[in-house]
Amino acid sequence: MSGSTCASTPLPERQPLPRVDLRQRQIGLGPVVVFGASNFPLAFSVAGGDTASALAAGCPVIVKAHSAHPGTSELVGRAIQAAVKQCGLPEGVFSLLFGSGREVGQALVTDPRVKAAGFTGSRSGGLALWKAAQSRPEPIPFYAEMSSINPVFPLPAALAARGKEMGEAFVASLNMGAGQFCTNPGLVIAVKGQALDAFVAAAGEAVKASGSQTMLTPGIFEAYESGVKGIADSGKAREIARGSKGDGPNQCQTGLFVTAAQDFLDDEALQAEVFGSTSLVVECADAAELKRVTEHLEGQLTITLQMDDADLDAARELLPTLERKAGRILVNGWPTGVEVCDAMVHGGPFPATSDARTTSVGTAAIHRFLRPVCYQNLPDALLPEALKQDNPLALKRLVDGKRES
Amino acid sequence: MSGSTCASTPLPERQPLPRVDLRQRQIGLGPVVVFGASNFPLAFSVAGGDTASALAAGCPVIVKAHSAHPGTSELVGRAIQAAVKQCGLPEGVFSLLFGSGREVGQALVTDPRVKAAGFTGSRSGGLALWKAAQSRPEPIPFYAEMSSINPVFPLPAALAARGKEMGEAFVASLNMGAGQFCTNPGLVIAVKGQALDAFVAAAGEAVKASGSQTMLTPGIFEAYESGVKGIADSGKAREIARGSKGDGPNQCQTGLFVTAAQDFLDDEALQAEVFGSTSLVVECADAAELKRVTEHLEGQLTITLQMDDADLDAARELLPTLERKAGRILVNGWPTGVEVCDAMVHGGPFPATSDARTTSVGTAAIHRFLRPVCYQNLPDALLPEALKQDNPLALKRLVDGKRES
Repeated sequence: MSGSTCASTPLPERQPLPRVDLRQRQIGLGPVVVFGASNFPLAFSVAGGDTASALAAGCPVIVKAHSAHPGTSELVGRAIQAAVKQCGLPEGVFSLLFGSGREVGQALVTDPRVKAAGFTGSRSGGLALWKAAQSRPEPIPFYAEMSSINPVFPLPAALAARGKEMGEAFVASLNMGAGQFCTNPGLVIAVKGQALDAFVAAAGEAVKASGSQTMLTPGIFEAYESGVKGIADSGKAREIARGSKGDGPNQCQTGLFVTAAQDFLDDEALQAEVFGSTSLVVECADAAELKRVTEHLEGQLTITLQMDDADLDAARELLPTLERKAGRILVNGWPTGVEVCDAMVHGGPFPATSDARTTSVGTAAIHRFLRPVCYQNLPDALLPEALKQDNPLALKRLVDGKRES
Repeated sequence: MSGSTCASTPLPERQPLPRVDLRQRQIGLGPVVVFGASNFPLAFSVAGGDTASALAAGCPVIVKAHSAHPGTSELVGRAIQAAVKQCGLPEGVFSLLFGSGREVGQALVTDPRVKAAGFTGSRSGGLALWKAAQSRPEPIPFYAEMSSINPVFPLPAALAARGKEMGEAFVASLNMGAGQFCTNPGLVIAVKGQALDAFVAAAGEAVKASGSQTMLTPGIFEAYESGVKGIADSGKAREIARGSKGDGPNQCQTGLFVTAAQDFLDDEALQAEVFGSTSLVVECADAAELKRVTEHLEGQLTITLQMDDADLDAARELLPTLERKAGRILVNGWPTGVEVCDAMVHGGPFPATSDARTTSVGTAAIHRFLRPVCYQNLPDALLPEALKQDNPLALKRLVDGKRES
């Protein structure tokens, strides 16, 4: 049991009616199912952020291990099992299930005893489980982190001043982990011209120099190949460069394509996530067309601005739209790399996630698995510790709008 | 724009990687649709808690007026319109639509520009609109407050000490507003015996003495009559008393029935909300059967304990189950009457509401219409006012886990 607590104290003399004693705390929703992600066997899997935040909220956790790393899953699961025992917690606080098909996942999400679920993975997988969760007689919160192409906006002054270096740094981010980051920069949006050409040329050289990397699973590799083929065959994107391709299985070949803004606006398929190290540059005629492309974007985990001081007005003009489109906005960095802290948001509007009100990384993630309960006029002996009059847990409670110290 | 803000300051020397500058604030989800309730033309309608919390979150509001009080709705809507003008806000910040069928509501909830909705009303109406909201290409939060029978538990010592007075006070709460409160006490659960008999006898006398009251609409009256008939015809409940019935239209006749715990457990229909002043007493053989009945309950807005000091152990034993079943737990009061304050929870597990993580009354209601955005390494000139370094809005921000004063 944890989370914020507050109280509204009695006002016995209030007219026309007195106020009673009201106290509120947050309690866990109940058993939570966690679907481990394929791409982060530690941070987003058995003992990842979903599990940590659900346990912190006071919820028992049932993990469905990802079939991409059953061995790691078991090792981590046994470590948690030992920790549960060492802490004297009930055994049922943590369970780990294996199963490669969809049956186990569907059965978990539709079990009436399960009260919430967290998922990191593909859009199709996430939506299928989300639908199952919403079709129950009692629907439950289902937090799916699904797909994001993490647009990067190189603004004019920055592009003119450092297009070449920016192109190289961009490809370094694109290639990280063979592009298998949820926050991989899959889209670049800029106004066309010499400065953008220099960026594209430098990025193209860096792509050509990119060595082949082994992807995590045959399924991810096949989806990547099919996604790249979709861009190539769309008739609306021209290939700038491809990296080298190794001989082994599941070899990821980096790719860079360019498309015209109008073609991007006309073809929804060009917004589909290609999970891996391929990116698409959208060339806009001017700032007005760039604005239209921005408005047209689906929800994202991140949006990145590359800007210099002279770009400030352009950035200010874009910001309100960017805030509506993404959970995290970055300046002069790259979206890969997610800090675990209070201020982090790893979430965003649909289809980046199924619930933009939350984050799956950082301390705010606990709120996904809590609900408030109000206690009216309970005798002190019956109140939970967190709400007793003399505050035995020494919590910083909000009492009549003021925080206890 | 409002809500809590926080920051995680840079740690440039951290190993193995530095921490960047991260700041978080909450922004409005976007346009919100509010469905006015039939039963509270002020508190839960055009200018009710849903509208207030959505506006406070920075969201434009479109109200679908309830057809039960179009005149009141228009008067209140015009007052808001004048206020919007007086405050110099854009006209589109508030709209009011009329329409008696389902078309307007469905069209509003499925419009891609709408980003959330609040609803107070029946379970069937709420679920239909909830389903429409979840079936959109981009699903949206739909906060439906739907149905609750607000169980009352008279515990043994309290029942023995003051069963008669309790029975009379219970019927006074039952009759409030012809029973048309979301928090009307529609169920009493207790261990059978002389003390409960005295409570039932006193309540029965009070019911017989209850005058007829005019219900809000013909539809509500018909649903009430049909609900009472359902209990009477179930073959599982015995009528204790009915109040008098007036000659005018839509006259609500108070009712009191008693059923055996096993019959209640066997027949789900006895848990259906009867919106109006009829209540059902569930007689349990002992504390163990009472526990089974409690576990069997659906989600509720409120649960009330009537208890004396000698009931403390019994109350402690029940409390963890009650917390899982309801949004608000009361001792020695009656659930009708909902204070607007920080600590209030007017919400609860399904089917009381579609989302137990929230409340529709009190200051916490604003969180339903907010989502977090994280800003990474933004220059101060680009940061929103709420997050600028020198804190021009003088907010109490959480910085590295400590609150600014």
